[in-house]
Amino acid sequence: MNKIKYLNCIFAIALCAGCATDATGPLPESTRTGVGPTDAELIADQATPDNVLTYGMGYNQNRYSPLKQINKSNIRKLAPVWTAGLENDFGEQAQPLLYDGVLYISNAKWTYAIDALTGKQIWRTAVEWVPDTRRVVCCGVSNKGVALYKGKVFRTTLDAHVVALDQKTGKQVWKQKAAEWKDGYSQTVAPQIANGVVITGISGAEFGIRGFIDGWDPDTGKHLWRRYTTAGPGEKGHDTWEPREAHAHGGASTWITGSYDPELDLAYWGTGNAGPWNPAVRKGDNLYVASVIAVRPKTGEIVWHYQFVPNDSYDWDSLWELILTDMTIDGQKRKVVMQMNRGGFLYVIDRTNGKLISAKPFGKVNWATHVDMKTGRPVESDVAKKLRAGGEIEMWPSVRGAKNWPHAAYNPNTGLLYANTNHMSSFYRFTDVAPYKPGLRYQGMANRYPTLKPGDVVGHVEAIDPLTATAKWRVPLKDHQNWSAMLATGGGLLFNGKHTGEFYAMDADTGATIWEFRVSSGVNAQPITWTHNGKQYVTVLVGLGGLYGTSGRSRLPQVPLGGSVWTFALRD
Amino acid sequence: MNKIKYLNCIFAIALCAGCATDATGPLPESTRTGVGPTDAELIADQATPDNVLTYGMGYNQNRYSPLKQINKSNIRKLAPVWTAGLENDFGEQAQPLLYDGVLYISNAKWTYAIDALTGKQIWRTAVEWVPDTRRVVCCGVSNKGVALYKGKVFRTTLDAHVVALDQKTGKQVWKQKAAEWKDGYSQTVAPQIANGVVITGISGAEFGIRGFIDGWDPDTGKHLWRRYTTAGPGEKGHDTWEPREAHAHGGASTWITGSYDPELDLAYWGTGNAGPWNPAVRKGDNLYVASVIAVRPKTGEIVWHYQFVPNDSYDWDSLWELILTDMTIDGQKRKVVMQMNRGGFLYVIDRTNGKLISAKPFGKVNWATHVDMKTGRPVESDVAKKLRAGGEIEMWPSVRGAKNWPHAAYNPNTGLLYANTNHMSSFYRFTDVAPYKPGLRYQGMANRYPTLKPGDVVGHVEAIDPLTATAKWRVPLKDHQNWSAMLATGGGLLFNGKHTGEFYAMDADTGATIWEFRVSSGVNAQPITWTHNGKQYVTVLVGLGGLYGTSGRSRLPQVPLGGSVWTFALRD
Repeated sequence: MNKIKYLNCIFAIALCAGCATDATGPLPESTRTGVGPTDAELIADQATPDNVLTYGMGYNQNRYSPLKQINKSNIRKLAPVWTAGLENDFGEQAQPLLYDGVLYISNAKWTYAIDALTGKQIWRTAVEWVPDTRRVVCCGVSNKGVALYKGKVFRTTLDAHVVALDQKTGKQVWKQKAAEWKDGYSQTVAPQIANGVVITGISGAEFGIRGFIDGWDPDTGKHLWRRYTTAGPGEKGHDTWEPREAHAHGGASTWITGSYDPELDLAYWGTGNAGPWNPAVRKGDNLYVASVIAVRPKTGEIVWHYQFVPNDSYDWDSLWELILTDMTIDGQKRKVVMQMNRGGFLYVIDRTNGKLISAKPFGKVNWATHVDMKTGRPVESDVAKKLRAGGEIEMWPSVRGAKNWPHAAYNPNTGLLYANTNHMSSFYRFTDVAPYKPGLRYQGMANRYPTLKPGDVVGHVEAIDPLTATAKWRVPLKDHQNWSAMLATGGGLLFNGKHTGEFYAMDADTGATIWEFRVSSGVNAQPITWTHNGKQYVTVLVGLGGLYGTSGRSRLPQVPLGGSVWTFALRD
Repeated sequence: MNKIKYLNCIFAIALCAGCATDATGPLPESTRTGVGPTDAELIADQATPDNVLTYGMGYNQNRYSPLKQINKSNIRKLAPVWTAGLENDFGEQAQPLLYDGVLYISNAKWTYAIDALTGKQIWRTAVEWVPDTRRVVCCGVSNKGVALYKGKVFRTTLDAHVVALDQKTGKQVWKQKAAEWKDGYSQTVAPQIANGVVITGISGAEFGIRGFIDGWDPDTGKHLWRRYTTAGPGEKGHDTWEPREAHAHGGASTWITGSYDPELDLAYWGTGNAGPWNPAVRKGDNLYVASVIAVRPKTGEIVWHYQFVPNDSYDWDSLWELILTDMTIDGQKRKVVMQMNRGGFLYVIDRTNGKLISAKPFGKVNWATHVDMKTGRPVESDVAKKLRAGGEIEMWPSVRGAKNWPHAAYNPNTGLLYANTNHMSSFYRFTDVAPYKPGLRYQGMANRYPTLKPGDVVGHVEAIDPLTATAKWRVPLKDHQNWSAMLATGGGLLFNGKHTGEFYAMDADTGATIWEFRVSSGVNAQPITWTHNGKQYVTVLVGLGGLYGTSGRSRLPQVPLGGSVWTFALRD
């Protein structure tokens, strides 16, 4: 690119009105249609890098972009081109979306539309929520992002409302109450658009909620359906709750956006831990806690399910990203859905029917010896039996999981998953379960982490083969853990973030850090990459937050709070 | 510089421990002495760009650096190398100081020590202040910066305390109360170190305070002297107050750090507007309101004074930066002190004796016809007479001044001043003065600004000849005004900032914008430039604040709040 043109591009607004019509300049507002995306655009998301329209950078949630203009040979020239503050100290965990040159960004307090090339704010809309809601949030005030569809921006609010905003103006079009926050319900999930339906999940399994996913009409906000994730009277699986009424406070949150296979017309949503954690008051498998459910978007019908952890008693949230790909197994092409589960097993499942293909541990696991491939059930170990008998166990992985929510990326060309992992134990036991009271903790357990010495390694970044769960490489992170989602690119790069305030890139072949930039706060969000007029950009939110950012404050006094959005490009 | 080495330099902490000893890498903490600067280092500040030790980048407050590695030919390669959040939504107006590879930064809430090459926080110390103090702050919560001296960091607090911190640890060494905030006193000023004394000023002339400057012992915090800026009983000038007791609430704040001539051993401090603004209750010249005083640092003795605006009745704060230089006038070398006064005149004064050399308007002025060179007094116009007779006048400049506090820079090689100016009028009249009550507004006037239409130009940037006050160039700023101090460099550059969120560089010869970067909030602070191992950097604080940032919020809804510090360098 001509150097002068590049300058024009970056500085157009300041330097000359004429630049606005330069092909390399920012989009003049009048050419923005502001109305989109369509179903076809959503389906084509991964293949059309000028837009970023779905959570996970594609319905398959691979978090992989084929873009390779920024690559291992030139990454050292990557530099910020702009940043914009987000007036939020609660932390930034969201993935931005991009449509027609405009970034759509959310956090607990705001929804923003920002010019993608200049960082200039187009509109922002304050979220109306009761600050008191914080008392029913187990793990930090946050928001994971928006959804875009046909001229509207959809988001959830901490006080459990679903909101649609006009894409051009940010004005509210409709708002619906999903649940009563005073009863422990909250929402941080980014909505999913699947087959024309807005699908949202719910948080609150630490407060004895009954989990669900909802379908909404995008135009009117009409409530189309609710699918509870704990089976109640008349529903298949209700007999897996003993006593039956335990399903009413059985947890199974749905706070991570599902993936979607438009050909099969199935949306895949994971469900969280059971409530309370102590299973004394809920015998049985407790469907559908700690499961994946394959759902018809138009109706909410559960077409199949697979329960990762029957009777989950460990907080093995199973709503981490469900990654879709087609892989050849034993000479046969299989449509699979994969998950690196909190409990330490990496599951590969046939996404047409829910049949288990593989389940191997990707770190030290001692609560189960293995997953029985015939029954699809984990076989609990003597350690687990000691726990159930009332003992305190040193559990591997720790309650925070071998992998927590920060999403893995999958590169279909290398066939590898790339993830931030945590290999550590915690000391865990059950305690009495106080009677359920709306809006209060309902857990019945005690957990403590071992005292770590400086230099002890808990966090890792690793490249993992899905079927063997073995690491091609594993990089130990001394003195810190990562809480950022990963982004893999065709340029052989992995973009990642640190709580300590660095956004960085790794060589996907080796895990070596090959670029790093210190930003204004911790990075625990979800980077994206995109193009405009043939030039590749990388955008990420910055802002320490989340459970481990917050409780880590005493350990990270040198990392300031404060949200912002950053866009990087190669300097010529 | 070798490219790999440069990478090491930026990314040393992340990539390898060994880099810490690389000559191009960040300073390992153990080599930092942390004890400085000395008097000799303070005096040599402008000539030693590895450190930035004084407010104004030199005791002469030229805000000029001879550095030219970053220049007009390569400025397009200037990019951020790191940023760090400052956890402050009140706005950032301070100038950072730099000693031995460590930046010292302050705002209303915090004092920070930050590694200058990596942005990594070394320590931060919270400011203890009563949030209620805000009610006695006329013009936004802020802080202008710290002073450094022999291992200590000095600052003031909004509730009018002077604090010394240990330079290595940030721990408090001493704290002294300067005044009672409940009576309307507050402090935002950066302390001055002159001849071994810590000198601080005071704010509050809108609340009927009696202004002063204080001298403190740097080691112990012992109060060495106080020099009131309104002359009281027994003091020279008391007879310029009628009634005499009016001096007790006569204003004359001192909220901008003075300059210093170490050879003459004179500290030059400006004084602010009189209190109340309406002079009905204070006849006479009212020494030393709206003046410059030349003070002996060891004793506080006023060696000479020059009163810019006798009986100031317009809020013509005269504490803007006092720029020292030596210039040849009529074939004679003169040691001068210059000020672009709020009232619209540019004054050049002999700094050895206070004799007026020149006083010309640098914009439209209608409250005075001119400054009489014999008496040194402004000659009030018919407009001023109408005001004093009780009428409302359209006053040029407006009450906010032809220039407000954002400091000008002076390049001794071009002989030009570079400043952000505001050429507009306001409608101004006196009202009844309510009896003085401690901690309440004491002003007695009404002011309104004309309604501006989009496209109306108020703000300008200009290059001005000190003796003629004529502009070599003047750039109109459409739809915004700048509230940033300026920095001039030997590379022919001017660094400047916009409320709308841009940090930018101008060609000092033409005023053309030649580089710009969108940062996370408005820029209304004071950029510095410095070197480390021969490489030039530029550092600036970011964070919308101040009176016009705050009251402008309704006009700037698209500019988010939030403080951060940014360091830029050339990318290779």
